[in-house]
Amino acid sequence: MLRVCVCVSGGGTNLQAIIDAIDNKVITNAEIVRVISNNKGVYALERAAAKNIDAVAISPKDFESREQFNEAFLKCVDEVEPDLIVLAGFLVVIPPMMIKKYERKIINIHPSLIPSFCGTGYYGLKVHEAALERGVKVTGATVHFVDEGTDTGPIILQKAVEVLPGDTPKELQQRVMEQAEWKILPQAINMIANGQI
Amino acid sequence: MLRVCVCVSGGGTNLQAIIDAIDNKVITNAEIVRVISNNKGVYALERAAAKNIDAVAISPKDFESREQFNEAFLKCVDEVEPDLIVLAGFLVVIPPMMIKKYERKIINIHPSLIPSFCGTGYYGLKVHEAALERGVKVTGATVHFVDEGTDTGPIILQKAVEVLPGDTPKELQQRVMEQAEWKILPQAINMIANGQI
Repeated sequence: MLRVCVCVSGGGTNLQAIIDAIDNKVITNAEIVRVISNNKGVYALERAAAKNIDAVAISPKDFESREQFNEAFLKCVDEVEPDLIVLAGFLVVIPPMMIKKYERKIINIHPSLIPSFCGTGYYGLKVHEAALERGVKVTGATVHFVDEGTDTGPIILQKAVEVLPGDTPKELQQRVMEQAEWKILPQAINMIANGQI
Repeated sequence: MLRVCVCVSGGGTNLQAIIDAIDNKVITNAEIVRVISNNKGVYALERAAAKNIDAVAISPKDFESREQFNEAFLKCVDEVEPDLIVLAGFLVVIPPMMIKKYERKIINIHPSLIPSFCGTGYYGLKVHEAALERGVKVTGATVHFVDEGTDTGPIILQKAVEVLPGDTPKELQQRVMEQAEWKILPQAINMIANGQI
């Protein structure tokens, strides 16, 4: 069984997609061993609790320095000895020492077709705002390995999603989640769990 | 009838797609009034001749300066009083005075999902080489209005195309042409001809 640690920051809809995919055997040979949130009281933690998944909130605000948070965060990951770390809407920059230690073992979901609308400054709703501002007719999502750069790691899966006339950033975000993110993130985990990558 | 001038540089497969779309009434209310090639002896010119479409080859090589070519090229366009100029694989930079004169009347087909793999340096096979090098799983094509920048004009249509494992740049180019370019370029012309943009 692939030991998966899922890192979240908010509502945890991608976490839910992973949980459901394990339940429905869309993902096989993998289990979530821990959910880590950098924000306390977010719904993602309740989703984990509802499935009796070990869940930890660890906020940078509770540490005197970024270094101290990074150390504690890494320790929190290390404790469960994960084979795969999934950044599922995790709005924290992964410390370089962690990227080094878990090389090709950290994956991220990005809400655009990389290399469009990626890199520093493109996260969350901002990605969709930028896509609408450029007037693209097709966007999508990307699952990629995390390396030292921002959204520069090897791409695992991508899925295109149509932009519709009059879309607001929130409407587009929702469609990209439903049609792409919630599908390709579980798919990618399953591929890794079954040695297909 | 929308008077369309098509500019080409080579084989003219996108030109053929436009010709076929007019024949099959996928495009209505439009006619090709002239085909201009910057290269002599290319197959695109034969495609035009086969349909009795006025075709002109005008090469920068036959002019002493770029300015002289630009003037002659603009004159060659002006002569047929086009409502729309279609750059269908046209590897010549459109002179600023022409862009100004034909504002929102020049469209281009680009073999990627803009803003991925666009701008200076990305043309022809190089676009697909770059896409494969980045390892994207989805690419596509874009029809956009031409403005002063390179691939920066308003997007009209885009269509996504899957990248398959082991694709060569040429294989990917062929798939993007078949599945996207030859569809969205005629579609865009038809939309313009029928006042849908």
